[in-house]
Amino acid sequence: MARPDLTDPPPPRSTPKCGQMQQQPLRISTLIEFAERHHGDVEVVSRRVEGDIHRCTWTDIARRARKVAQALDAMALPAGARVATLAWNGHRHLELYFGVSGSQRVLHTLNPRLHPDQIVWIANHAEDSVLCFDMTFLPIVQVIHARCTTVRHWVALCDADQLPADTGIAGLQSYEAWMGCHGEDYSWPSFDENTASSMCYTSGTTGNPKAALYSHRSTILHAYASALPDSMAMSARDSVLPVVPMFHVNAWGIPYSAAMVGAKLVFPGPALDGKSVYELIESEGVTFAAGVPTVWQMLLGHMKPAGLKFASLRRTVIGGSACPPAMIDAFREDYGVDVLHAWGMTELSPLGTVCTLKNKHLKLTDQEQMKIRMKQGRCIYGIDMKIVDGDGHDLPHDGKAAGDLLVKGPWVIAGYYRPEGTSPLIGGWFPTGDVATIDPDGFMQITDRSKDVIKSGGEWISSIDVENIAMAHPAVAMAACIGVRHPKWDERPIVCVVRKPGAEIGRDELLQFFEGKTAKWQIPDDVVFVEAIPLGATGKMLKTRLREQLKDYALPGT
Amino acid sequence: MARPDLTDPPPPRSTPKCGQMQQQPLRISTLIEFAERHHGDVEVVSRRVEGDIHRCTWTDIARRARKVAQALDAMALPAGARVATLAWNGHRHLELYFGVSGSQRVLHTLNPRLHPDQIVWIANHAEDSVLCFDMTFLPIVQVIHARCTTVRHWVALCDADQLPADTGIAGLQSYEAWMGCHGEDYSWPSFDENTASSMCYTSGTTGNPKAALYSHRSTILHAYASALPDSMAMSARDSVLPVVPMFHVNAWGIPYSAAMVGAKLVFPGPALDGKSVYELIESEGVTFAAGVPTVWQMLLGHMKPAGLKFASLRRTVIGGSACPPAMIDAFREDYGVDVLHAWGMTELSPLGTVCTLKNKHLKLTDQEQMKIRMKQGRCIYGIDMKIVDGDGHDLPHDGKAAGDLLVKGPWVIAGYYRPEGTSPLIGGWFPTGDVATIDPDGFMQITDRSKDVIKSGGEWISSIDVENIAMAHPAVAMAACIGVRHPKWDERPIVCVVRKPGAEIGRDELLQFFEGKTAKWQIPDDVVFVEAIPLGATGKMLKTRLREQLKDYALPGT
Repeated sequence: MARPDLTDPPPPRSTPKCGQMQQQPLRISTLIEFAERHHGDVEVVSRRVEGDIHRCTWTDIARRARKVAQALDAMALPAGARVATLAWNGHRHLELYFGVSGSQRVLHTLNPRLHPDQIVWIANHAEDSVLCFDMTFLPIVQVIHARCTTVRHWVALCDADQLPADTGIAGLQSYEAWMGCHGEDYSWPSFDENTASSMCYTSGTTGNPKAALYSHRSTILHAYASALPDSMAMSARDSVLPVVPMFHVNAWGIPYSAAMVGAKLVFPGPALDGKSVYELIESEGVTFAAGVPTVWQMLLGHMKPAGLKFASLRRTVIGGSACPPAMIDAFREDYGVDVLHAWGMTELSPLGTVCTLKNKHLKLTDQEQMKIRMKQGRCIYGIDMKIVDGDGHDLPHDGKAAGDLLVKGPWVIAGYYRPEGTSPLIGGWFPTGDVATIDPDGFMQITDRSKDVIKSGGEWISSIDVENIAMAHPAVAMAACIGVRHPKWDERPIVCVVRKPGAEIGRDELLQFFEGKTAKWQIPDDVVFVEAIPLGATGKMLKTRLREQLKDYALPGT
Repeated sequence: MARPDLTDPPPPRSTPKCGQMQQQPLRISTLIEFAERHHGDVEVVSRRVEGDIHRCTWTDIARRARKVAQALDAMALPAGARVATLAWNGHRHLELYFGVSGSQRVLHTLNPRLHPDQIVWIANHAEDSVLCFDMTFLPIVQVIHARCTTVRHWVALCDADQLPADTGIAGLQSYEAWMGCHGEDYSWPSFDENTASSMCYTSGTTGNPKAALYSHRSTILHAYASALPDSMAMSARDSVLPVVPMFHVNAWGIPYSAAMVGAKLVFPGPALDGKSVYELIESEGVTFAAGVPTVWQMLLGHMKPAGLKFASLRRTVIGGSACPPAMIDAFREDYGVDVLHAWGMTELSPLGTVCTLKNKHLKLTDQEQMKIRMKQGRCIYGIDMKIVDGDGHDLPHDGKAAGDLLVKGPWVIAGYYRPEGTSPLIGGWFPTGDVATIDPDGFMQITDRSKDVIKSGGEWISSIDVENIAMAHPAVAMAACIGVRHPKWDERPIVCVVRKPGAEIGRDELLQFFEGKTAKWQIPDDVVFVEAIPLGATGKMLKTRLREQLKDYALPGT
């Protein structure tokens, strides 16, 4: 700065209210523009429904997303219209992610694992205008299409020559014919960053499905937060395998965060067996993978007998349900892969916490670290959380007090999509329905679902704790703990158990197994042996169904 | 989800426009709230002006920031009022960062290295109401205070008993007395995220200083982006040493990103010599440090003769000016420290690019990687950039074409603070004043400042290239290349050279040294030996001053 040049400042004026920074709305289209401009040659690799391995780049995805946008324009589909998908993880699904939301329509990812009746109900509730589906799901679409009253366009995610002649679905088009006829020239529209971008229905265990309606802003902020070193730590050096489906809360946002950092994306398609996933990890140099525990169980089950190792995989994020400690150990010690627990839900876009260690933990022993790793983790900035008692009073973050977990943040829902009137929030906080502890370092651990916790004589018993003890018995294949009415204690726990094939175990033997493993009053009052425990579409135990089945059950001595 | 429970969807309704996500403004106060709630016991360590090492935690910083806010309230200071600082990196400065901005005032970090006349000019232009200063700068304040016509409150960053009796500054208070009398109970106010949060004047080499006026939104988005793995990769496992001053574009945003991820912060105070910095790195387990090349030169200068090594340091980010390759090598090979080049400017909050490798580069040789590492790096998502020719037409990203570098993004200024009327933007893009190339992988390399590039016969000659060659000669201490008028070629380069003490070198010998190192027409036409090259307050060469000094110079033969 040159000294002699100091002319007098202008005369005083009013106080500045706003900063003078560029107003650039946080829009999903800017992600794909960025990936094309700065990481254009980075690959997107898909194992397709057809069985082959498809290779393209972020540039290809960007170009084809622009064609999708124009195909929607050509249908005269208005802003905000819902475009549904019934699809596996693959490049065409990715193109729809950007083409639909980028052109100001709402991407609605339907879960093909639901019962057809449920899919129909959800498509009608969302009033989907277009439905794009993988050929795997043609039989489902053939069953439901006549009942999806708002869907006017059916698009099969395949080449024109793969479209069967007579599907019975009027006007069915192939994706490649539908979008392929458009050019690559297209400018993404400008609009407010709070505009709806995508929606996802919850797999609630009771009541009708409810939808989270995400915005462009919430999606971008979630992508920033989830790529941070303490979250998924995603970079341009990563090759990322989202095993978690793109119909499960947007594959935990990975399609967006991968575009944000220019990571290579590897899609498994429908092949989620251990062998297929292993081969993809090795052939595509996957460094980071994300999914639910069952997938990793299958993967390790394939690798162990064959003595296989990973060449490139360095870390996995596991969410959806708690990961058994033995699996975390196996990944770390036998395969050199860091396993991170994460916790989230549809209403949180989904990421709430990730279990990465703090500086102070680095000097702990492996065993001490494992105690922390088993927790669901700590908040990423943007999310805040607290636990409250039955009266809504804050409970201490001491790692002991368990209470209802509430969260807030810019990627947490304010309400469900229709009905809009009834806000689920409590003083601005979203009640997660989970019961949890939070320790002084901010690490949260889910102890139960609110509706599954057993309230016995004013104290809470975690159904998950009871189930974990039962399942540690070598003769137990599966266990579900529920509360039953008790004249004195209000509720008492019983445990429903499926025996392993050929295994024998009786009531008293199992109850004895609890001795010394938990407080006496937390030991269940009874064991009910059952053939099977009812499971929902996403593999969660349906305790409501179990309670119905046992509605005539009476506790011994009551 | 229970199947039998599918009641009919509600009747059709209008298309959703907005997502239904929580509206949580991006405010700086939420950073310090987050750090307190989730990383409360993480340390903030400061070497103070007093010479001692001060230790506190994020909880302490949060509590004291709330006291600062109340001290400002007690002064009845309105929203938007400017609170200036003249201070080193330390915990009290950090408290002001959060206390001032969090309470809706504007933090104005003054650069104490400027001439007192410039500080007066800037304080008057900004209309600062309060000025807080480290005791080191008491002599400056004593010189300027009478001329700072808008400042009503003077606060010395010290304990009450350290305040000298007679400073001549009316109403001078000690920081500890000023804010210490307030309680810790305080709720941060709610306001729009585009509200002004802080300001920083550019150290321009011509004209009057100009200010960037940052917003809460731009600051938070910048913090997210700068903590990403491809940027500064900051996490709760880091101990971070910002050697870059908090009066230089908010220490590159590190006070904010450290709070965002719960990192330990280590402040060097005024002691930036090699020994002090080294001792702090070792005693505080610093894993990551950020600063300009001169600081690292001093650090290595201290370590090398003594054979010292780092126990914890893993990476540094170097910005401000290009880092000599030899220094990058030394850090990597001798000390195992990764050196990242970064590029930014006051108008960019400051981060624009960081030079982290991509997946495809990992298999390159060290030498090939070094070629990439020497570039200024690639965009972090949020920033976009392009290069244009003299007519404003886009130039290719081929790593060869050099043009004016333009940037845009939500943490780039839209205009300067007063005058507001004259937008510096060109079609929404901010012209950086740098000349650069961008390669097909998106890596940008600064080749010159726009105003320093020499336009010879329609071609551009990079003054930096010429200087780098000259400075590679063992007899040259410093070199500055400028253009002078030429009747045929419009401009031709000459190089002004300061010889090393005792070294001898003549004009012809130095010009011969250029042979084979650059194209013939890019070799300077003359060498002018000078005693010294004028430097600005931040160590940059003042070529305008040099041009003035040589205004009577004529090229040989013209």
